[in-house]
Amino acid sequence: MTEETSTGAPSRRSLLGWGGAGLVLGAAAAGGAVAVTREESDAGDAVPAASTGAAVDFYGPHQAGIATPVQDRLHFAAFDVKTEDREEFVALLKEWTRAAARMTAGHAVGEGAFGGLAEAPPDDTGEALGLKPSRLTLTLGFGPSLFERHGERFGLAGRRPKALVDLPKFPGDNLDRARSDGDLCVQACADDPQVAVHAIRNLARIGFGKVAIRWSQLGFGKTSSTTPDAQTPRNLMGFKDGTRNIAGTDEARLARHVWVGEKDGPDWMTGGSYLVARRIRMNIETWDRTSLREQEDVFGRDKGEGAAVGKAKERDEPFLKAMKPDAHVRLAHPDSNGGATILRRGYSFTDGTDGLGRLDAGLFFLAYQRDVREGFIPVQRSLAAKDALNEYIQHVGSAVYAVPPGVRDKDDWWGRALFTGKA
Amino acid sequence: MTEETSTGAPSRRSLLGWGGAGLVLGAAAAGGAVAVTREESDAGDAVPAASTGAAVDFYGPHQAGIATPVQDRLHFAAFDVKTEDREEFVALLKEWTRAAARMTAGHAVGEGAFGGLAEAPPDDTGEALGLKPSRLTLTLGFGPSLFERHGERFGLAGRRPKALVDLPKFPGDNLDRARSDGDLCVQACADDPQVAVHAIRNLARIGFGKVAIRWSQLGFGKTSSTTPDAQTPRNLMGFKDGTRNIAGTDEARLARHVWVGEKDGPDWMTGGSYLVARRIRMNIETWDRTSLREQEDVFGRDKGEGAAVGKAKERDEPFLKAMKPDAHVRLAHPDSNGGATILRRGYSFTDGTDGLGRLDAGLFFLAYQRDVREGFIPVQRSLAAKDALNEYIQHVGSAVYAVPPGVRDKDDWWGRALFTGKA
Repeated sequence: MTEETSTGAPSRRSLLGWGGAGLVLGAAAAGGAVAVTREESDAGDAVPAASTGAAVDFYGPHQAGIATPVQDRLHFAAFDVKTEDREEFVALLKEWTRAAARMTAGHAVGEGAFGGLAEAPPDDTGEALGLKPSRLTLTLGFGPSLFERHGERFGLAGRRPKALVDLPKFPGDNLDRARSDGDLCVQACADDPQVAVHAIRNLARIGFGKVAIRWSQLGFGKTSSTTPDAQTPRNLMGFKDGTRNIAGTDEARLARHVWVGEKDGPDWMTGGSYLVARRIRMNIETWDRTSLREQEDVFGRDKGEGAAVGKAKERDEPFLKAMKPDAHVRLAHPDSNGGATILRRGYSFTDGTDGLGRLDAGLFFLAYQRDVREGFIPVQRSLAAKDALNEYIQHVGSAVYAVPPGVRDKDDWWGRALFTGKA
Repeated sequence: MTEETSTGAPSRRSLLGWGGAGLVLGAAAAGGAVAVTREESDAGDAVPAASTGAAVDFYGPHQAGIATPVQDRLHFAAFDVKTEDREEFVALLKEWTRAAARMTAGHAVGEGAFGGLAEAPPDDTGEALGLKPSRLTLTLGFGPSLFERHGERFGLAGRRPKALVDLPKFPGDNLDRARSDGDLCVQACADDPQVAVHAIRNLARIGFGKVAIRWSQLGFGKTSSTTPDAQTPRNLMGFKDGTRNIAGTDEARLARHVWVGEKDGPDWMTGGSYLVARRIRMNIETWDRTSLREQEDVFGRDKGEGAAVGKAKERDEPFLKAMKPDAHVRLAHPDSNGGATILRRGYSFTDGTDGLGRLDAGLFFLAYQRDVREGFIPVQRSLAAKDALNEYIQHVGSAVYAVPPGVRDKDDWWGRALFTGKA
């Protein structure tokens, strides 16, 4: 039995360039947001069987990688724009869009693959050759600095969305500017890390001389689920967090809390969203020497099942007043923040050890929302002021991006409405 | 259908502590080295279906993680010893052995899991709760500095194996001492990175105050296969390399090139091996702007199939004289190095970007051999002097370790023969 027959998904090998016989699965769900054929079954299902090799549709009203069931691995890159030429930058966005459509479908970049001229560099760097599409999604965002630093040159003056605010400085923030901000971002999620790394690397290669990677982050384990009723994966503190995440199939909540609506403005953002990225370092060694009771009090959950204080199951509705006033679950709950609700897609990271032999590890927090002022900011104000967890974590990187709507079809490209003024 | 029934492997959830009803699969193969029930089928099979969740037997004449079919992900940690007390260090090795046996079987560390005292820190940090064993292997090694810096105190003076030589300085080496050496190492390999990270973190936690992590490395994609006839996974240059690796089932070649024999000495190393670890940074951006012809000339292979120059298939025997004299395959081949043969288990890494916006990425090279003087050293002398690849890579970290034989049973422990003098 080959993998092809066991999963129904073609391998990259079979898709490569020659003849274009690639069959892309999925893409059938309403709205294009959920394009795999099988739901995730369990947080413990770290290597779910059938669906992990499939392709997620690149085209649709919203970019994939937001409501899409959360893939296992992440490579996130922030770029700064180096070119001063508007036409060159627009050409790059078009070329990136073409490459992203090919890679997410499991193809190599460029029609030629290795069949091109031997005297030229290959169109594709090759390390994903033979790998499956692996539910790769590529999600592009524009940072505030694109509008501020390049606005005049690129004809974007006055086009910065009001909802794309600079984040305030929260108590306890200890931000490293070298791990913050960026004119652009690309979030690559896939079930195979080599597929995610390959995608970012090839976009960086295509952009050589026009954009440069400012910082990047590899995430090795998802900490959130957007699948209804799935168990929430555990973070590096060993806890389930974010149980009441917005499901990727819940159109009503998505429309209310995630997608920018027609009346929200600006026009070029309709169907888009806003992304907040925070690199949250955990003081792992201190946490690991803390008693189970303290750990459970800090979160307001039991560690084994993940149920809220006094409850039996992870998904039982929490009774907030049963928790300590500074418990994380209580402070993060929409009821404590005027209903503020965000869609979380965070990943655990570990980047080796620091100079003191401590693990440089934690949560790379990613949250999507319709308006940052009504999503992340009120929640984080509440947490930064009081959360018992603050003793064990520190926010060390921060960025915010406007994520435009999806690419409609082969003639469309990332950011077209922003640059052409036509929705 | 649940994951349990689809893979036949129990989840960590079902194994946790209560009652000890854990069923551990595998462990049936000769020598205990190969303990999964299904061979890897293909390098493109990044998420192979059935076998990835199973457990690899911890006990046997050799440590698992050497001849074991290569798992998808790596977390490697080098430790320095902080305690000066021999008994305390021996007690740590025993405790580590117990914890390793539990974790590789898919259990949490400690019998109590979260059932222990609420006033004490949990025995296990919890983030692997609910995950499968994921073919986790933990492989321990002793570095030269253990014998040199701690030899007198620990009663190890004169016990350093002759084959555990300090590596010479090779031309082109640009070693960062902070990413080199170490008194101890633990190689954690698993099909789920969260399981590998959890294991290293819990060993570090258990060792707190007695040992400290000196450096660590996460590997996201295997670049080698030890499975006969499997396709070789691609490295970040997009090439298959190390096609003629030693198969984990080839007892004759393992005995000749990997396992320390009874006559080799010292007695405490019989059944063990020697590990060389090298952090090899790739100049990704330069490589990606190089022509396909140059890339293929450098390796001495075609990029698509991986066949040697003039051959059709990856595994066709190379005709070395058809290659350029400085081709990588030609210089690394045993015929060019007096028969020197090593077992490779390397992983691709990417650790973000450096200060110039270049990817800090490459190959974390791991090679096992019976004697470093007849394995890595002659091969690397040849490569360092002439390899065309040197224009695109740099060795930036280096370590060598004596990897003792396997733990026989529940009463045995890592390094027992070294510390007790009884084989």
